Amino acid sequence: MQTEDSSSIDGRKPPRVVALSGGVGGAKLALGLDTVIRADDGRLTVAVNTGDDFEHLGLHISPDLDSVVYALAGISDPLRGWGRANESWNFMRALEGLGGEGWFSLGDRDLALHVERSLRLRQGNSLSHVTAHIAARFNVDATIMPVTDDPVRTMVHTDTGILPFQRYFVGEQCKPAVQGISFAGADQARANPALLSALADPALDAVVLCPSNPYLSIDPILAIPGVRDALRRTTAPVIAVSPIVHGESLKGPTAKIMRELGIEVSPAAIVSHYGDLIDAIVVDSQDAAEAFEIDLPVLATNITMHCMADKEALAREVLHFARTFGASHRSTLQECLP
Amino acid sequence: MQTEDSSSIDGRKPPRVVALSGGVGGAKLALGLDTVIRADDGRLTVAVNTGDDFEHLGLHISPDLDSVVYALAGISDPLRGWGRANESWNFMRALEGLGGEGWFSLGDRDLALHVERSLRLRQGNSLSHVTAHIAARFNVDATIMPVTDDPVRTMVHTDTGILPFQRYFVGEQCKPAVQGISFAGADQARANPALLSALADPALDAVVLCPSNPYLSIDPILAIPGVRDALRRTTAPVIAVSPIVHGESLKGPTAKIMRELGIEVSPAAIVSHYGDLIDAIVVDSQDAAEAFEIDLPVLATNITMHCMADKEALAREVLHFARTFGASHRSTLQECLP
Repeated sequence: MQTEDSSSIDGRKPPRVVALSGGVGGAKLALGLDTVIRADDGRLTVAVNTGDDFEHLGLHISPDLDSVVYALAGISDPLRGWGRANESWNFMRALEGLGGEGWFSLGDRDLALHVERSLRLRQGNSLSHVTAHIAARFNVDATIMPVTDDPVRTMVHTDTGILPFQRYFVGEQCKPAVQGISFAGADQARANPALLSALADPALDAVVLCPSNPYLSIDPILAIPGVRDALRRTTAPVIAVSPIVHGESLKGPTAKIMRELGIEVSPAAIVSHYGDLIDAIVVDSQDAAEAFEIDLPVLATNITMHCMADKEALAREVLHFARTFGASHRSTLQECLP
Repeated sequence: MQTEDSSSIDGRKPPRVVALSGGVGGAKLALGLDTVIRADDGRLTVAVNTGDDFEHLGLHISPDLDSVVYALAGISDPLRGWGRANESWNFMRALEGLGGEGWFSLGDRDLALHVERSLRLRQGNSLSHVTAHIAARFNVDATIMPVTDDPVRTMVHTDTGILPFQRYFVGEQCKPAVQGISFAGADQARANPALLSALADPALDAVVLCPSNPYLSIDPILAIPGVRDALRRTTAPVIAVSPIVHGESLKGPTAKIMRELGIEVSPAAIVSHYGDLIDAIVVDSQDAAEAFEIDLPVLATNITMHCMADKEALAREVLHFARTFGASHRSTLQECLP
């Protein structure tokens, strides 16, 4: 499918879009969506995974929220993929000199965010409130929110034991074989009311599941009571962007985990994983031949985002694809719901 | 009085010395003492004021302890007078960008100490324990300890209200006129048992009151129950080094505060302030003519410490001066005690 060069999605009204995102991979598409939607005076809500959050050095760290905030603020590090650009590491070196924990790197500038957030949380503010404050300080237009203000902690069950997410991801560099994943606290967590409200908006144009790790980054979002139902009930088309390209991950350990869990590493398996939550999927052109296996509308295009132009182009394609569904399709779906 | 060039104090046994110190001014002499005493395989205990400690950005900051630790670790900034040498300030700039509190500067390297200390305190360790750990990581030989593990907070009563110490000292840059000073929590605080034990050691050779601000830095130490008595009972001579030279402070607002409190700015007034706690005073050569007003043994020498050689020379002079007292003098004093 070819997109128009126009920055407008439908030429009629400013688009309203909700994106569900994990960290670095999701943040790339969120940045593309933000750029495209801002150009149309639209409204983007990015609901972000908090299963990776953890307490470290007495600070509350929210890696995925930060990746999205830094990306949309235009200050994320383009090479490292996480943290801030032009970062310095004097704090870390001094901390290691004191015998402190050095396994999780915190840049000097990045640290300010963790200190300020931790302070504001301790003062009784919600994570949503603090995130909104930080995003505003960075002049981010989009609404970036944690999917919940309650603690959810992704636990990775591996052949070397159950590891908190960051111990698995950073400490062990994803080396242990994954046998299962659980989300401590998810069943007690209250979905962010602002997310539920955005999904219930009858004027919503699209819900985008960013190409984040479905098992580690999107599942903790879906594990929160009410989120799956809200996705099923929204009148907007729900479109997943495949995190798998030609049998490998766009980024991170997605493919490795799928293999360890005995799942075929393909966009079809992603569709099967999301099940009735999604209405369509965007896959890479390299996987176009597989589209016939997928019993949903498929858009095949370049989904690897190397540069800003790639991010914007993919965002435009996804939004344009969403428009092809129209309200009628969702109305039909709605009728099937109890 | 002339000192010998020898690094030994009495040529017989390794010296044991206790120093009471505030921040930067005291840390200079503490460094001189440490160098001289280490050369003689002696034992230096530095008991440090904690009245300047405060919670900031969710971190426990102990400015005076840090000044002494950094000085003895050989990494204090020689120009700024506080914090670490070769410091960077990227955290502060980023924090200010986030709307965080920027009035109290924390360098990127310095911050590691505050984060690590705060974490260890939250884990249930005492400030003494954490301070010993930090000093050991910096290969400091001397025993550096807070004068108490309990919270003591210096409150400065000024013409603009009662200010916590750091608000007065850093926030207001000592501008408000001081009407009085109090030490919240001091009457409930338990003196560090290791300090009381060091002062009770019959082999102790000297107790040195460093040229710190008597009102802001030494008084909070003396306000802790048991410290005054321990100073009166120690068999070692207690020697104060004047923080006043020729009617002005060696450093900081000492002279300004004395004027505001209606106290003559002179070494004699310092002697009068310390009263029966001290056995002798070291004043600057410029104040030698005043010595006749002082009813205690006086050593007049250069007490302004510009460089390392100054610090070591003053330390040697103070320790040599202490030796001239011998045990007999203190025995007499002891007999007068109830």
